[in-house]
Amino acid sequence: MAIKPSLLLCFLLVASLSVSLSSAYIRSGGSALFTIVSGNNRESYNLERDDVLRIPAGATAYAANRDNNQNLRIVKLVVPVSNPGKFQDFFPGGQQNPRSYYHGFSRQTLEAAFNSPYPAIVRALLGQQSEQQEGQSQSQTQALVRATRDQIRQLRQNARSSQEVGQSRSGPFNLRNFQNPISNNYGRFWEAHPNQVPQLQDLDVSVILMVLNQGSLFLPHKNSKTWVVAYVSEGSGLFEIATPRREQGQEEQEEQEQTYGEIQGLSAQLNQGDVFVVPPGYPFALTASNNNNLHVVGFDINIQDNQRSFLAGERDNVIAQIDSVAKELTFSGSNQQVESLLRNQRQSYFASAQPQQQEQQQGGESGYAFA
Amino acid sequence: MAIKPSLLLCFLLVASLSVSLSSAYIRSGGSALFTIVSGNNRESYNLERDDVLRIPAGATAYAANRDNNQNLRIVKLVVPVSNPGKFQDFFPGGQQNPRSYYHGFSRQTLEAAFNSPYPAIVRALLGQQSEQQEGQSQSQTQALVRATRDQIRQLRQNARSSQEVGQSRSGPFNLRNFQNPISNNYGRFWEAHPNQVPQLQDLDVSVILMVLNQGSLFLPHKNSKTWVVAYVSEGSGLFEIATPRREQGQEEQEEQEQTYGEIQGLSAQLNQGDVFVVPPGYPFALTASNNNNLHVVGFDINIQDNQRSFLAGERDNVIAQIDSVAKELTFSGSNQQVESLLRNQRQSYFASAQPQQQEQQQGGESGYAFA
Amino acid sequence: MAIKPSLLLCFLLVASLSVSLSSAYIRSGGSALFTIVSGNNRESYNLERDDVLRIPAGATAYAANRDNNQNLRIVKLVVPVSNPGKFQDFFPGGQQNPRSYYHGFSRQTLEAAFNSPYPAIVRALLGQQSEQQEGQSQSQTQALVRATRDQIRQLRQNARSSQEVGQSRSGPFNLRNFQNPISNNYGRFWEAHPNQVPQLQDLDVSVILMVLNQGSLFLPHKNSKTWVVAYVSEGSGLFEIATPRREQGQEEQEEQEQTYGEIQGLSAQLNQGDVFVVPPGYPFALTASNNNNLHVVGFDINIQDNQRSFLAGERDNVIAQIDSVAKELTFSGSNQQVESLLRNQRQSYFASAQPQQQEQQQGGESGYAFA
Repeated sequence: MAIKPSLLLCFLLVASLSVSLSSAYIRSGGSALFTIVSGNNRESYNLERDDVLRIPAGATAYAANRDNNQNLRIVKLVVPVSNPGKFQDFFPGGQQNPRSYYHGFSRQTLEAAFNSPYPAIVRALLGQQSEQQEGQSQSQTQALVRATRDQIRQLRQNARSSQEVGQSRSGPFNLRNFQNPISNNYGRFWEAHPNQVPQLQDLDVSVILMVLNQGSLFLPHKNSKTWVVAYVSEGSGLFEIATPRREQGQEEQEEQEQTYGEIQGLSAQLNQGDVFVVPPGYPFALTASNNNNLHVVGFDINIQDNQRSFLAGERDNVIAQIDSVAKELTFSGSNQQVESLLRNQRQSYFASAQPQQQEQQQGGESGYAFA
Repeated sequence: MAIKPSLLLCFLLVASLSVSLSSAYIRSGGSALFTIVSGNNRESYNLERDDVLRIPAGATAYAANRDNNQNLRIVKLVVPVSNPGKFQDFFPGGQQNPRSYYHGFSRQTLEAAFNSPYPAIVRALLGQQSEQQEGQSQSQTQALVRATRDQIRQLRQNARSSQEVGQSRSGPFNLRNFQNPISNNYGRFWEAHPNQVPQLQDLDVSVILMVLNQGSLFLPHKNSKTWVVAYVSEGSGLFEIATPRREQGQEEQEEQEQTYGEIQGLSAQLNQGDVFVVPPGYPFALTASNNNNLHVVGFDINIQDNQRSFLAGERDNVIAQIDSVAKELTFSGSNQQVESLLRNQRQSYFASAQPQQQEQQQGGESGYAFA
Repeated sequence: MAIKPSLLLCFLLVASLSVSLSSAYIRSGGSALFTIVSGNNRESYNLERDDVLRIPAGATAYAANRDNNQNLRIVKLVVPVSNPGKFQDFFPGGQQNPRSYYHGFSRQTLEAAFNSPYPAIVRALLGQQSEQQEGQSQSQTQALVRATRDQIRQLRQNARSSQEVGQSRSGPFNLRNFQNPISNNYGRFWEAHPNQVPQLQDLDVSVILMVLNQGSLFLPHKNSKTWVVAYVSEGSGLFEIATPRREQGQEEQEEQEQTYGEIQGLSAQLNQGDVFVVPPGYPFALTASNNNNLHVVGFDINIQDNQRSFLAGERDNVIAQIDSVAKELTFSGSNQQVESLLRNQRQSYFASAQPQQQEQQQGGESGYAFA
């Protein structure tokens, strides 16, 4: 699986057609037109911000940016139908970059297939050999083509929006219709879950959107079964994760012997365009910077029967559920100390990144990043 | 998965028993007797041309060629129950090539298992050490044994044909009962689909048979999700496929960077006994030679929700469904040129391999194989 | 998948919490207390001998040995949720061996998460840096903690036994409730099958228990689809398996060419604590030693539609089902000799390891281990 964010310049039409993938799209900016064609059908959709569209594996599809003056951004999860990690795009048109798949057939076969003389096929489908230089830049690739306003207008005919589509087995849906109850004043969370959205059912994937308010913290938590693959669509912040410690050159050995609870913290600045991945079971947290909200869109993969457990905060806090005796045997403090500590955080899920209560003696080394 | 075509000489009995495989058999010639035994049951079947039989994983089975003067050919798809790509045959009888699995147990255990003295076990099951030479040829292997007419006659008792079995959850079925509507005067296609045939349901495999008439073309098309594994059982022809271009020594790099629409054509002569494989999404075409029909039997693996899309012809043509504007932006010709070209082929799925319409100026380099 | 037998000393509490695994436990000795906590729930169970408990993937769990003077043994099958063969434990508490996952977060994040000053967090959760030496022995790891009698008593409150739980979708069940009809006077077999036990349903795993009486034989047999992973919990005996012959240095080549029925016998002494694995299709047998019963607990993985076929004995004997003619063509003896041999063993499944009938001329080389 891969996330493949693409930037489509305005008034460009992607007339390139992807194949052999099950895909979900999130638009995180701009407004787009998507068309999916099969052998006997064509469906066009107008997509707005936070709309999600599934493109069936192997479908022929194309997209256009409808906006005059705004870039279109798409976040894409590619699910290969067979070999994990491998997929392949095929294009019906193009002489080079892309090159039409019709170039894969012999002259005789093409003449028979179209019941037409070869020059007519070249004229209509294959095109003249272009005099492109070697050093041509990627952005001039013919997979992206500039369309006129009038062409965009024609493409929009019969296109339906996610509202017009409503609840159906195909077509787009909007993430903002699926607010998760874990939302509060510090952050909001939307999750289109396969139990609610038939388009996602056989993929076992949730599509998520999170807006973490400036200066707020998504409390440390873990997923029991789910991989998180997420993309920062706006804002900046900090990503922290607790991972097993691996010493240099001991990877193999440690896997066998030493995974018994050795933990280190990894942290990374998050900025727009960054992608992060969290395996199941790994505790992680997110902090939004003080001057702007952090917007994250992503995919929770292997979501069925997943449990999201928090390690701090009032509700869904797995630590608070441990027996008093077991708390005492597990932690360095007495059960009273642990429970008193747990009670200090009255928020759940999302909280202020600035602690409200400060002990007198606190201060010390503020540069001390990890415990 | 593997295709394993076997040639069984007439009046030979395969008394060897395969194990740990889910298998489907297509008989593409001769007439056979198959018996499947389990711990408390025995089922025998008379198989005719184009009958398909599923052998459950791990079943003990044996087959006989009933014909006096015709070879028996079997096309077999082996689906391992656990490790992909690995399977293992086990034989209850035989001293060497094959060697009975009873040889894997100690004398003490065999005596206790059969509650009998060792010499009686050797006499009945294990046999004398034969004086076989090292250089013995494969065809003399004891997995194939010559049976008398009378023995074949006894084996046939109680054997049922696919017609007698009718529609049930086990037993054979005949491919010719499942004609696919894509058949026409140039070619016929049969497909036993898991939706129709309970024997195939949990395998997610269609068994297919195609007869492409001499001088005919199976139009370029692609499967959205299915792998095709096919065997040429009769005739000859040409196989063409459009594949991503891979330059020498750049495989790794290209996988990451350059798979963007670079296409090359691969073609191969097909003759009886050849096997070809088509991954999902790859456009391909078949042509029968001018002097005989091309017969292909095979397996469409991962068939659920597969879409077969044609790239030429009247029906199920995915290119014809693209918007006029998108056609113009995708292809080198105007929308009018593309649509006029598409209209020239009035057939669908199968067509003549000789184009009927010829442009005046056509001619040129007839040796020009690929565009 | 892995079997991970653990020895927990008496009056120790495992306050360590495992994560990202689906697990089934068999207690083969001692008596234990297991607690599983999630974000909003806590379930405690009293487990007795031969109880099985499934721990959901990613759950936080801990266990205690309730007995004063008996060691607790657990047999565990770990089913990773994503990467096969890889799993990871995480612990909420501990400074080192294990180290709390809270150590993976920065001071700032912990202060905000708990809305508390850092020293209070260190005091309650993170603990002081201990002065542990490098050479510290494994058994001193803080994942195992000694608990007082009174602490154990508190942990037992509200814990339910497998009898109290009854038939439900979660919680423990006892293997002794699932006697398999293949049991007889020589051996008894219990099998908790996913068809009967909802806890095992989506795992496609049977949990098995076998007691083979002293001087008895579990007759040679094979599974059509199932892997057997088994643990000797008591007694001693002999394990025999018929496997394809692999010559030294020819592994790769043989896999392709020579797997056609070359068989060799492998045998191994079994003692308490030993683990053995049997792939699907491989014939195997077990013999209990003459002075004690052999107790085996284990997991039959990939059990759905599995057929257990016996190669000797009266019932479920696949060889007895072969046609007379096919028997004659397969084996060295006449059909009469084979059928007379098969009739000598009147027992099914389990039998005496001492043959009752002896031929006059028998005797010979008793040291002759394999045929």
